[in-house]
Amino acid sequence: MILLSTKRHSLAHVMAQAVKQLFPEAKIATGPDTEDGFYYDFDFGTIEFSDKDLKEVEKTMKRIITQNQDFRKFEVSFDEARKILNEMWEWFKNELVDKIEAGDFKNKEKLSDRISFYLNISKWGKETELQNFLMHFSPLDKGEMSGKTEGVFPIELDWDQVKNLKFIDMCTGPHVENTKELDANSFKLVRVAGAYWLGNSDNKQLTRIYAYAFDNKEELDKHVNMIEEAKKRDHRIIWAKLKLFTISDLVGPWLPLLQPAWMIIRQSIETYLWELHSQRGYQKVWTPHLAKEALYETSWHAGHYLEDMFKVYGGTSKETFFLKPMNCPHHMQLFADNQFSYRDMPVRYFEPATIYRDEKSWQLSGLTRVRAITQDDGHLFCRVSQIKDEVKTITDIIKEYYNTLWMTDDYWVSLSVRWEDKSKYLWGDDVWELAEWALEEAAKENELPYKRVEWEAAFYGPKLDFMFKDAIGREWQLATIQCDFNLPVRFDLSFTNENNEKERPVVIHRAISGSFERGMWVLIEHFAGVFPLWMAPRQVIIVPVLPKFDDYAQTVLDTLKSAWIRASADFSTDWLNKKVRNAEKMHNNYILVIGEQEENDKTVSVRNYKTKEQTVEGLEEFKTRILNEINTRSL
Amino acid sequence: MILLSTKRHSLAHVMAQAVKQLFPEAKIATGPDTEDGFYYDFDFGTIEFSDKDLKEVEKTMKRIITQNQDFRKFEVSFDEARKILNEMWEWFKNELVDKIEAGDFKNKEKLSDRISFYLNISKWGKETELQNFLMHFSPLDKGEMSGKTEGVFPIELDWDQVKNLKFIDMCTGPHVENTKELDANSFKLVRVAGAYWLGNSDNKQLTRIYAYAFDNKEELDKHVNMIEEAKKRDHRIIWAKLKLFTISDLVGPWLPLLQPAWMIIRQSIETYLWELHSQRGYQKVWTPHLAKEALYETSWHAGHYLEDMFKVYGGTSKETFFLKPMNCPHHMQLFADNQFSYRDMPVRYFEPATIYRDEKSWQLSGLTRVRAITQDDGHLFCRVSQIKDEVKTITDIIKEYYNTLWMTDDYWVSLSVRWEDKSKYLWGDDVWELAEWALEEAAKENELPYKRVEWEAAFYGPKLDFMFKDAIGREWQLATIQCDFNLPVRFDLSFTNENNEKERPVVIHRAISGSFERGMWVLIEHFAGVFPLWMAPRQVIIVPVLPKFDDYAQTVLDTLKSAWIRASADFSTDWLNKKVRNAEKMHNNYILVIGEQEENDKTVSVRNYKTKEQTVEGLEEFKTRILNEINTRSL
Repeated sequence: MILLSTKRHSLAHVMAQAVKQLFPEAKIATGPDTEDGFYYDFDFGTIEFSDKDLKEVEKTMKRIITQNQDFRKFEVSFDEARKILNEMWEWFKNELVDKIEAGDFKNKEKLSDRISFYLNISKWGKETELQNFLMHFSPLDKGEMSGKTEGVFPIELDWDQVKNLKFIDMCTGPHVENTKELDANSFKLVRVAGAYWLGNSDNKQLTRIYAYAFDNKEELDKHVNMIEEAKKRDHRIIWAKLKLFTISDLVGPWLPLLQPAWMIIRQSIETYLWELHSQRGYQKVWTPHLAKEALYETSWHAGHYLEDMFKVYGGTSKETFFLKPMNCPHHMQLFADNQFSYRDMPVRYFEPATIYRDEKSWQLSGLTRVRAITQDDGHLFCRVSQIKDEVKTITDIIKEYYNTLWMTDDYWVSLSVRWEDKSKYLWGDDVWELAEWALEEAAKENELPYKRVEWEAAFYGPKLDFMFKDAIGREWQLATIQCDFNLPVRFDLSFTNENNEKERPVVIHRAISGSFERGMWVLIEHFAGVFPLWMAPRQVIIVPVLPKFDDYAQTVLDTLKSAWIRASADFSTDWLNKKVRNAEKMHNNYILVIGEQEENDKTVSVRNYKTKEQTVEGLEEFKTRILNEINTRSL
Repeated sequence: MILLSTKRHSLAHVMAQAVKQLFPEAKIATGPDTEDGFYYDFDFGTIEFSDKDLKEVEKTMKRIITQNQDFRKFEVSFDEARKILNEMWEWFKNELVDKIEAGDFKNKEKLSDRISFYLNISKWGKETELQNFLMHFSPLDKGEMSGKTEGVFPIELDWDQVKNLKFIDMCTGPHVENTKELDANSFKLVRVAGAYWLGNSDNKQLTRIYAYAFDNKEELDKHVNMIEEAKKRDHRIIWAKLKLFTISDLVGPWLPLLQPAWMIIRQSIETYLWELHSQRGYQKVWTPHLAKEALYETSWHAGHYLEDMFKVYGGTSKETFFLKPMNCPHHMQLFADNQFSYRDMPVRYFEPATIYRDEKSWQLSGLTRVRAITQDDGHLFCRVSQIKDEVKTITDIIKEYYNTLWMTDDYWVSLSVRWEDKSKYLWGDDVWELAEWALEEAAKENELPYKRVEWEAAFYGPKLDFMFKDAIGREWQLATIQCDFNLPVRFDLSFTNENNEKERPVVIHRAISGSFERGMWVLIEHFAGVFPLWMAPRQVIIVPVLPKFDDYAQTVLDTLKSAWIRASADFSTDWLNKKVRNAEKMHNNYILVIGEQEENDKTVSVRNYKTKEQTVEGLEEFKTRILNEINTRSL
């Protein structure tokens, strides 16, 4: 089976070939595979290349694919690579050779002083196509191309192959062996964007062509539909419309100010989370947003996390602090200030707290990343023998929460363990093996659909990350359970055991919702801005048909408000249609139209904004029904 | 009627006279009146002066008072003052003359280039006493003392007076005219403490003698009793015992970390406050703890509040921010991001938020002042015509809250208005008069027991401060309602009125509890750590007499916990008496003793920790009773 990433990368190669065929003057830069396809960066020089050219490129790609071209790899020395690329006038690639030699790409494998190229060869290519290509490759004559002189080409290439040569690109691969392994209907060019050479804004701006690519057309269509659907649900449009928060230039970027509508949603969720936690022995705590550097020296962060931290200076005292970038060190201090015995264990702290991180600008986009991050954070202090039970408790909370929130049990769990290079992790093998074993046992006993994932563990311990699918099939990493044998040692935590000896507890970090800001982004798009009634900021709006029904409308309003239902009324003199349109624009879950009939019968005409259903109900009957919908946290 | 402050200041003077009489070598520094009496600072040189000497000083003071000495004021030039003080060897006073002349005491009135002194004169003073005094005043011979040469003494002093001269002190006054106006039983010397000359730790340490002083013995005794009672209730002892919070050296001073017990109290109060507010149309909002300087430039604080603010630097971005020292500017931005019409007014934001202020060290003590201050903050945006109604709403909340919290309607309201020096206030007379009128009208219509207090208004507007008395008669400024015509202008706020024109709203700042940290301090001392059941961290503890009753104790525990009652059980093998003592130490409101009788009858033996009452009740009966006590927020 060919990996999807290999197919995507091969399609990027084919796209570059097509572009060169159509625009021989274009220079190629780099073209990796991505999460949903691939892209390639080009320098089109004076040519104006735009979205409308994509169709032609796509057509040419499809033709290349049907030509069953071979992908053939060969390796040359750095100097030989430079020579070839020079002759091809591919100066971006040439710069890459210098950088690879200088070791600038540490995460790329350096291929033992050799640079690899891929040739595309067609058995039945037309002579004219070859001529087109050779025009840009002219200095290499037949003799040199044969690979028989000077060891330039370690692979065997005879003239029959060379005359069918379609495209050459410097690339580490891997690629498919032949374009017939690619599905001409499995990809779609999406859009053209600007991108700086090597991602550096001091460099030349290139033209990037983005494409989606999947194993087959069905998968592609599913993704395209999902993207279409996601656009409609884009939280950046919905939140502005529903006035969920404010970005103020005076306050600063990535520091949203939450408007009442967001706070209603957040409070509903926080109340529910606290209900789930307090039932299970958690205790709320609160810690300040500041701490001295000494706290982070003890916790190890001062030496390793400094760039992401905000430093604080007192105006009068001249004392210095840091804004907390996480709650863990503070919670260690809360635990340490008690003399706990084994009877008190586990100790479970819960704090929905805002932390501050100075993320790099390029990491910040919409609600994806913000500088003020509010988490439903919590820390458990338990004995090693209690890890499994505690993981079960947390898992119960996670399942119940996400089942209520969006009725899903479509999730999987990533058990993040160490990679084989163990030098980047704190503490020894014994501690790690114990922690990984404990989490895996807990995952098994709780029948979690888990996979072991190497590389993903934090430096301080293994973890379980919960991945949930939303309404349009996107996967989100939301809840997390992390084992930590490190902080208890660094803060010298202990409790007294049955033998009156000091025993070291284990710390478990856990978050159910994770960041509320990210959670909000997911919720907005999952529900497309029409929130379940229990958390909806605007549950009911009352729309009198004419001012003469304002009195009864007011009665309806008072009745609902006295039952703590979030109701409002539109007493403006606008026409009914406009009032209903305004009500829908703000995603009021229920729109109650009030006219003569309703006043006479003491009823309400109900429009359900989400289902578009229309009913007529008695006022009390309606109130009881929606109170039930709210109290059961119905979806 | 003589002001209490005048009496206190005169007693300070008498104390200095007594000290000089007993310890002629002592040098006098300064001696002001205080909130509950007075103090005076002395340099005793090599003399060891301690608490045990206070009795003698007090006795001497009483004798001086019975001598009916006159207080006589005279004024001299700066140079003349220096000469007198030099001859008297009173170098602290001499330093003061230099400082007054240099204008170092800006808040002290500069007496038109004259320095005033007070003499104590007795009509029947013994010659020896005069000699004692003159020993330290020797260089001024009879002639000079008569005041008839060089205009040194502008008041008439004849030899009869001078020979009865008891004491001389440089002082602006005012004093009583004669010590017979002082009550020898109305004061009490309290303690000796160290104090730096001029409050600067680089200076010499002096000896400060503190005293209580009131109009009469009855008032004094009341105060002494109150202080005794307050010592027993000292929150600094109670909070450590009840493990309410933690101070960590690693986190830093004046940044308490709140333990679960405190959070239960705080959450109970916050929930109640939100109940009171949400019923009255308030909406919760949330704003980040950071903002750019631009926000505070707009709000005016950057130029005037900088010393109290914490500056923040991003590790990666290098951007600078401030920690918010108040929420108002953020809330202005929330309002400004909406297009409100007159139909939307008033808009009412509520945010229980933590703000950070870098208070000077000497301002910080216990929970009195902390760097992290959490307020039940809120801002109202209304029309001028709505001020009165809104003040009524806020007053309703205040009355209901404090009535529930500690069953008091013993309060008065300070209407803080401008002082006659109007230069320190923002904006003109018209705006101020309107605001002061509106608040006073609201106070009248709401029948608030208010007094107009000059000087106390903030620079931006007048306010109403609510002063409540606690269980031992101490007065606390807690709630506040502040009018603000300034911020709406600075942030250019507006809404659309009936004529489709832009209209400027008024802002009302209001806090009911004020700072939760200060509120907690008041509550701890008011309740002496035995909190009303609805907010008590430890509502019930179950104490089985012997391990064989653990099963029934567990049933009782489960029954109570399932009704969300904060119950625990002591299953240790300690003796009953020790268990009860431990339960009482942690101020459990109800202690349920479980033995054979209780198990057989399905009852509980209840000890009420506060009232010491003991009852036997059926388990369900007890549960119902205390649930009612909780739900009605009973005291």
